[in-house]
Amino acid sequence: MTLIDPGTALDAARLEFREDLLDAGLLIGSASAGIYGRSATFEAILAGLDRVLTEMAAPLAAIAVRFPPVYPRADFERTDYIASFPDLAGVVSSFEAGDREHRELLAAREEGRAWDGWLTPSDVVLTNAICHPLYATLEGRLPAGGAVYDVLGWGFRHEPSADPMRLQSFRMHEFVYVGDPQGAQEYRDTWLDRAVETLQSLGLPVTAVPANDPFFGRAGRMLVSAQLRENLKIELTVPIYGDLHEGTAIASANCQRDHLTAAFGIRTADGETAHASCLAFGMERTTLALLRVHGLDVGSWPAEVRSRLGL
Amino acid sequence: MTLIDPGTALDAARLEFREDLLDAGLLIGSASAGIYGRSATFEAILAGLDRVLTEMAAPLAAIAVRFPPVYPRADFERTDYIASFPDLAGVVSSFEAGDREHRELLAAREEGRAWDGWLTPSDVVLTNAICHPLYATLEGRLPAGGAVYDVLGWGFRHEPSADPMRLQSFRMHEFVYVGDPQGAQEYRDTWLDRAVETLQSLGLPVTAVPANDPFFGRAGRMLVSAQLRENLKIELTVPIYGDLHEGTAIASANCQRDHLTAAFGIRTADGETAHASCLAFGMERTTLALLRVHGLDVGSWPAEVRSRLGL
Repeated sequence: MTLIDPGTALDAARLEFREDLLDAGLLIGSASAGIYGRSATFEAILAGLDRVLTEMAAPLAAIAVRFPPVYPRADFERTDYIASFPDLAGVVSSFEAGDREHRELLAAREEGRAWDGWLTPSDVVLTNAICHPLYATLEGRLPAGGAVYDVLGWGFRHEPSADPMRLQSFRMHEFVYVGDPQGAQEYRDTWLDRAVETLQSLGLPVTAVPANDPFFGRAGRMLVSAQLRENLKIELTVPIYGDLHEGTAIASANCQRDHLTAAFGIRTADGETAHASCLAFGMERTTLALLRVHGLDVGSWPAEVRSRLGL
Repeated sequence: MTLIDPGTALDAARLEFREDLLDAGLLIGSASAGIYGRSATFEAILAGLDRVLTEMAAPLAAIAVRFPPVYPRADFERTDYIASFPDLAGVVSSFEAGDREHRELLAAREEGRAWDGWLTPSDVVLTNAICHPLYATLEGRLPAGGAVYDVLGWGFRHEPSADPMRLQSFRMHEFVYVGDPQGAQEYRDTWLDRAVETLQSLGLPVTAVPANDPFFGRAGRMLVSAQLRENLKIELTVPIYGDLHEGTAIASANCQRDHLTAAFGIRTADGETAHASCLAFGMERTTLALLRVHGLDVGSWPAEVRSRLGL
């Protein structure tokens, strides 16, 4: 599988950034594209960024909850993720048979044949967006005025790429509002502005642009049109590859309307279907954007940025 | 699937502990056994514990690396995990076909039929032990005197259970030595003692016992015998359910000999196959043990324990 074409200037720039990160020891390569170890320095930047975002969100008095990197398949089935993004999903299977089948599996493996046929689907899938397991816990009526949640965890997208900005497994920090439709719209707009200010204060030249998610296939193209037309999701992008690319999204502010709240039976205090909106930060992408903008030697970053990140 | 039998006193005690944790809001239940959200209080205990462990390990001057919750299937294939623990593994698949196959998948799903047949194995699996992705990065020669690594991340075990001490997805903090055989044995013995002292200093009544890992099937029973006979792995257990159970492991010190170092071609400075040993802490299990021993109301914990954990 050719994941990137070094013959184009953009892909050459991506490969060069990746090599620079590996040479500097900030990322540690693996046998899979988009799967890396993170160095102590990389993690220190990410932790500093996380403190800045948590301070930014303090006025929200959000309820913090943490979820694991897998969540129930039963909840995944309540979303339309396998319809919209089948190619990005990660479904987990395991071995649930006996000694005889296990011997058959091992014999097939010994002969270099596929052995997945002996596995059965498990009751979990990889968490695609860290707010999805949250919604599953909110079934029923919300308090009056709605609620705001602070969720941080690992997301998965099956999209192997040599572009270091496109990982298969990465952390997201999301601040999620659930409540009435007007509250959801206002939340998205207010906190989009705060996110822009916060990221700019770290020296990141962010631009707010309408998002077009990679919905799958022919039917998906209509969903993209609707998303753009209704201006539901705004992405904050940073130019990572100069003029070669329009910029990479590091955060988003997303008005989800009743898309997931209806699926999970989440209602406002007066019994209406709730709306949700969320402010989401890609923790690795934002860390990488900081490294791209300020350079790979953290010691030479602007003093103010280092101070804010506690570096 | 009956995961637990409330008719026995032990299982009744497990269910009661689980209910107490859910009622206190420390864990948030989900549709899958062993998959929970964690509250801010739970995370504060876990973070405090992590600081204590990091301080304990400071003399090691370990190299810190963080890995995601999935790792390359190519590396998984270099281990014998699917031979020893097939039932605990988590193998990831995704959708890699086109529009037509996607329509077939959705039609099957709509009719309530299984749709996993349209998926294909992906290039990653769930990380079973957080030291496994590390070994894959160490191929080649180590520096003279070996090296010590600090790894923290999410592990996965497919073992749905209503016992809150048995999670499917959980964090492990491991301190891993790789070097010569004598160094590996000494490391295990020295740091086992330090781990016992550290956990006891938090009020945990730990006992060191020889481990017998749940190797699969008939062939696995011989591996258990060998593991016990050679005293390779020691577990630190805490009584969670009084006299009803012999105690649950919250940490282990494991002399792995050349088990994984040979598989990954890791050699000492003078070219011999390296040996490895690791000190591993189950972060959720240790947090739950603290809650079990000191009570679910953190405010009423002994002042000294709260102070050490920064609570």
